[in-house]
Amino acid sequence: MSRIDGRTAEQLRPVTIERGWSKHAEGSVLISFGDTRVLCTASITEGVPRWRKGSGEGWITAEYAMLPRSTNTRGDRESVRGRIGGRTHEISRLIGRSLRAVVDLKALGENTVVLDCDVLQADGGTRTAAITGAYVALADALAWARDNKLVRAKAQPLTGTVSAVSVGIVDGAPLLDLCYEEDVRAETDMNVVCTGDGRFVEVQGTAEGVPFARTELDALLDLAVAGCAQLDGAQRHALDTGALPPA
Amino acid sequence: MSRIDGRTAEQLRPVTIERGWSKHAEGSVLISFGDTRVLCTASITEGVPRWRKGSGEGWITAEYAMLPRSTNTRGDRESVRGRIGGRTHEISRLIGRSLRAVVDLKALGENTVVLDCDVLQADGGTRTAAITGAYVALADALAWARDNKLVRAKAQPLTGTVSAVSVGIVDGAPLLDLCYEEDVRAETDMNVVCTGDGRFVEVQGTAEGVPFARTELDALLDLAVAGCAQLDGAQRHALDTGALPPA
Amino acid sequence: MSRIDGRTAEQLRPVTIERGWSKHAEGSVLISFGDTRVLCTASITEGVPRWRKGSGEGWITAEYAMLPRSTNTRGDRESVRGRIGGRTHEISRLIGRSLRAVVDLKALGENTVVLDCDVLQADGGTRTAAITGAYVALADALAWARDNKLVRAKAQPLTGTVSAVSVGIVDGAPLLDLCYEEDVRAETDMNVVCTGDGRFVEVQGTAEGVPFARTELDALLDLAVAGCAQLDGAQRHALDTGALPPA
Amino acid sequence: MSRIDGRTAEQLRPVTIERGWSKHAEGSVLISFGDTRVLCTASITEGVPRWRKGSGEGWITAEYAMLPRSTNTRGDRESVRGRIGGRTHEISRLIGRSLRAVVDLKALGENTVVLDCDVLQADGGTRTAAITGAYVALADALAWARDNKLVRAKAQPLTGTVSAVSVGIVDGAPLLDLCYEEDVRAETDMNVVCTGDGRFVEVQGTAEGVPFARTELDALLDLAVAGCAQLDGAQRHALDTGALPPA
Amino acid sequence: MSRIDGRTAEQLRPVTIERGWSKHAEGSVLISFGDTRVLCTASITEGVPRWRKGSGEGWITAEYAMLPRSTNTRGDRESVRGRIGGRTHEISRLIGRSLRAVVDLKALGENTVVLDCDVLQADGGTRTAAITGAYVALADALAWARDNKLVRAKAQPLTGTVSAVSVGIVDGAPLLDLCYEEDVRAETDMNVVCTGDGRFVEVQGTAEGVPFARTELDALLDLAVAGCAQLDGAQRHALDTGALPPA
Amino acid sequence: MSRIDGRTAEQLRPVTIERGWSKHAEGSVLISFGDTRVLCTASITEGVPRWRKGSGEGWITAEYAMLPRSTNTRGDRESVRGRIGGRTHEISRLIGRSLRAVVDLKALGENTVVLDCDVLQADGGTRTAAITGAYVALADALAWARDNKLVRAKAQPLTGTVSAVSVGIVDGAPLLDLCYEEDVRAETDMNVVCTGDGRFVEVQGTAEGVPFARTELDALLDLAVAGCAQLDGAQRHALDTGALPPA
Repeated sequence: MSRIDGRTAEQLRPVTIERGWSKHAEGSVLISFGDTRVLCTASITEGVPRWRKGSGEGWITAEYAMLPRSTNTRGDRESVRGRIGGRTHEISRLIGRSLRAVVDLKALGENTVVLDCDVLQADGGTRTAAITGAYVALADALAWARDNKLVRAKAQPLTGTVSAVSVGIVDGAPLLDLCYEEDVRAETDMNVVCTGDGRFVEVQGTAEGVPFARTELDALLDLAVAGCAQLDGAQRHALDTGALPPA
Repeated sequence: MSRIDGRTAEQLRPVTIERGWSKHAEGSVLISFGDTRVLCTASITEGVPRWRKGSGEGWITAEYAMLPRSTNTRGDRESVRGRIGGRTHEISRLIGRSLRAVVDLKALGENTVVLDCDVLQADGGTRTAAITGAYVALADALAWARDNKLVRAKAQPLTGTVSAVSVGIVDGAPLLDLCYEEDVRAETDMNVVCTGDGRFVEVQGTAEGVPFARTELDALLDLAVAGCAQLDGAQRHALDTGALPPA
Repeated sequence: MSRIDGRTAEQLRPVTIERGWSKHAEGSVLISFGDTRVLCTASITEGVPRWRKGSGEGWITAEYAMLPRSTNTRGDRESVRGRIGGRTHEISRLIGRSLRAVVDLKALGENTVVLDCDVLQADGGTRTAAITGAYVALADALAWARDNKLVRAKAQPLTGTVSAVSVGIVDGAPLLDLCYEEDVRAETDMNVVCTGDGRFVEVQGTAEGVPFARTELDALLDLAVAGCAQLDGAQRHALDTGALPPA
Repeated sequence: MSRIDGRTAEQLRPVTIERGWSKHAEGSVLISFGDTRVLCTASITEGVPRWRKGSGEGWITAEYAMLPRSTNTRGDRESVRGRIGGRTHEISRLIGRSLRAVVDLKALGENTVVLDCDVLQADGGTRTAAITGAYVALADALAWARDNKLVRAKAQPLTGTVSAVSVGIVDGAPLLDLCYEEDVRAETDMNVVCTGDGRFVEVQGTAEGVPFARTELDALLDLAVAGCAQLDGAQRHALDTGALPPA
Repeated sequence: MSRIDGRTAEQLRPVTIERGWSKHAEGSVLISFGDTRVLCTASITEGVPRWRKGSGEGWITAEYAMLPRSTNTRGDRESVRGRIGGRTHEISRLIGRSLRAVVDLKALGENTVVLDCDVLQADGGTRTAAITGAYVALADALAWARDNKLVRAKAQPLTGTVSAVSVGIVDGAPLLDLCYEEDVRAETDMNVVCTGDGRFVEVQGTAEGVPFARTELDALLDLAVAGCAQLDGAQRHALDTGALPPA
Repeated sequence: MSRIDGRTAEQLRPVTIERGWSKHAEGSVLISFGDTRVLCTASITEGVPRWRKGSGEGWITAEYAMLPRSTNTRGDRESVRGRIGGRTHEISRLIGRSLRAVVDLKALGENTVVLDCDVLQADGGTRTAAITGAYVALADALAWARDNKLVRAKAQPLTGTVSAVSVGIVDGAPLLDLCYEEDVRAETDMNVVCTGDGRFVEVQGTAEGVPFARTELDALLDLAVAGCAQLDGAQRHALDTGALPPA
């Protein structure tokens, strides 16, 4: 059975990772998973939030947002409504946790990195694209920090690599990297964040309709681990060459 | 190896479920998982939010909150700060989704149930206690709705039962139902929501320190499924007798 | 003429004062005036708000809130609405002033006590139950502060005792300690806060329907003073024995 | 003993009531109690808030505010801070209740009157000046409503008159109409709202330092009743002549 | 062709400038442009906002607001809505910039002046009246600062004078100082802020209906410059004599 | 004298206009003025805001925002701060007014167009780039509306074209289209919005340091009119060909 866009069940959408998209940020990446496009910038500054001062450790945090017309029908701006919605909060926290999982905050020293992930166009998988892109922006910002002596020359703040992908059960079949249309129809929806060595940072599975069985969960995890391994390759290629590997 | 409070790795804390705690609410439960105490009330009203009107379907939503001094050091009130925090949003949404997974919204008709879960005392596992207690409050409110003709006599809005428990890896060992002290030290922390027939509604695992392996994930899921089966028994006992089963 | 619940005009509802309700707070009391139940916790911390630093004096403040389903119909959460309502503000300020009236802030030293009064179930008189319970929680927290050397051993921060009761004119008759049904029908409604020696800390009388005469005001004050004297006894008994005096 | 400004204990400050201060409002009054100046406008519009529709009754509400530099040191604007403070809420509610006490909402019909009381200069007694001035603005607006057929020709929405004054105990002596300097030093502070026939609408007494005795309360009430009788005269004179009676 | 109120095209409305209106503020002016009345107070305090500390320079800022019933139909309070509207923000910033243009912030030293411009009654031209009045209040506050040694005796913080006027094209004709009725009908609306020597601080022209041509722009600028010269005279007269020059 | 980036005084930076950037919006443009990049989307929906219903006329509004790291140092998100800043408000209003100036709202019918202008990278002139790009997005959305029968086939909602440019005096010399570095150093800064036939929609000039003379104003207006004429050409070329004209 083939999917809406002709992919097989275990196939990612085309992934592009464009580094150095912004002239201001210490790290910046425009990442796309198919039609989903997220601009990820990493801003590094000396110093840490008050509750961390004097600890000798740094801090990594993230903010996710969607442009009002990144979606099919325009959404209200959260700045105009005067409050951040629950979904935005949830995803911002997820991105921050995911990246902290591969950073040695002691080696970072008392510096703060803010990862801004702004969705320019949404077609499913915005949070997983954000994590995958933010990792590359973070790596660039940490390299900048070493070049600019914010971080000691021998410090290794990055302890691993991290990427994320969505999986789900659609019409009974487990599928990798759902686009919006598939996501809407999914009975179960899962976001998985993996390190480059195949371990888990986050596993978030949700039954949208009927509850799911252990065997289904296992199938989804298998798909996700394989998908993250491919994304890990795309990240490495982008970091090595500045160019995108052939899909 | 025995735990802080003398439990074995696969043992729940004492669970109590006190129904009918409030004289006003259609369903109300004071649930405790050890020293964690959550007051869950179910408020049912005719009508649905505007975006659902005319659909013939009902709605279930939840709001979670902690009293300022439910914790060891006092937290600011979110009402005074003027905004709901990210964690509160996240847990409220989780509770709502978990209960909707066992409700046939068509059978509910155009009625709304709000589940308020207020943590009176916190000692780890507040969200899982909230889900487990809210299910019982919801069952009572739906019985009330049938008695009061809000719902047709033959309608079966409840399609199953649901409970939740936390699991985690502490000092390398998978443990069931973490208390606060264990939760703080956990390397991996997972909340699992199961139906009474052992399927999953939500699986949320997070690596707090080091990423976790597939074998660890499997061990945690095993523990959680067994824990939820016990909680399912406690819920049934409370609903059958109004009294708590011996621990 | 007997009242809805069979009381005489000058009779209080049954009062219970359960100390040590919370394992975290320095002082905590679950107080009930009939079906009205308020959880009062006292949190004491070193230091004072910025505007008081260096004064050598402490600070006492209070926050009152109602759980959404403490009432007959569910109310919106103030945290969700994003702002504290006028009534909440008013009552929080009243509780704070009432307790400060019996505290020597100099003897307290530069420490802060926050009294959280959360209404778990409402049936009239929530603010007066809150003041009466908060006094006991405060006394316990100040004893804790002496034991833990936050306050000097010989300091006497408490200069008196304080309790509060509502009175009102219902169908032309002055009544003590109104329950919700009486409160709704009252032509005049008054909250009185007294010290243990029978003097006034606050007198707040409001004509709900027709204005009230001086003779009516006098009768209400007489009732309130007698009611507070009984509450003073209940507080002393709770503090002496940890148990409630027979009603 | 004479007071700071040479008055006797039972003497009001000079009172001026200037009607028709604004060309836009249906009723408008600039009232002064000594150096305290409050602009009171009454805005009447057809219709009532949603929760009152179809009741056949009108609604009266009030909003109190202070200009930032009406006081000795500049206060932040509540609009800039993004929230109304507790004191503002409390006083707005007091003004609204006080005026509703002398209005027959049925006779008003489904019309709404908003009383805006903006303190242009503050020197103690701003809330009592606001109530006293708002009554006159309200009377003018109701006359306008009858002339403009918003209210039936024979309807008598006003059922009485209302004014307010502060009293307090300063250095042991009961004083009428405290100016700011006296207010700051007062041991007890009371605001009393009376109808023209000498009955009470509101009595709000607060011990700022030591609690107060019944005899003190009685003395304050005597002073307040006499003060309100004088203010009632000033209101009548203003309404009869458009000019202020000689002090 | 004569105007609604009988003025010629190049005639200002009667201008009054009443200094010393408030007993608390260091400078205060009640200014009127016809029926538009704005209370301008200048509050000067030692110290500057954090971002300016140690710079040796002072700061001038302004806040503009309208009383709810300053207009023909009552507007909601921004404090109640919980946010400042765009128009309020815009005008506050304009007033601040306009006054900073004639102040040497170095000569002011590390002091802050806040100009509060509260519209008591609106009939067009509120922002231009506010700037014109605020200048006089500022001049008084700076004189007070010198007398009170906040500013060195020889410092000259004021480097010029500033006033403002509106101009517009109504029914094809360029008019000076529009009243509300003219403003509503204007095709082009322009606010011009000039120094006493005829140079520009701000020029803000807006086509309300059809775009305007360069010749129209030139005619409007001519009118405005002449109007500001007259306002400059009124300001000087008020500052010299405390009285208003004959119109 | 040549400029920082080698341009002459009357030269624009390279302008690119990329239509159809987003797959969701009815009109979308990524515009760049040198390193300033703004994503402009036009969202058209049936219906108008409540205050316009039944008027037969449509509505055009705009929202401007900057991504947090579009600037050299990261700015806080307005959604996180919970309020829109004054500058954002001001620019959003300016964009909306500018576009309404070339739209016949009657011909638009009761439809609403929202123009979202999100600055992805800032280097001066963000508001003028936003207006210039938003015009093209609006034109595309209106064409879409005609194709999709939202607007009648013969309706001509667009009555002209509009573009905008900044001008300023830097080191005494009038310059066109300031980049950030020039903008910071400008003594006078002006934003001019022109129609394609050379008339003015908005003229906003501000003296940042010293006030400016009439001759300087004239020189700036000359530059701006010439700059807008070039931008008008770039817009037409983009709309005709979908491609960018050679710079």
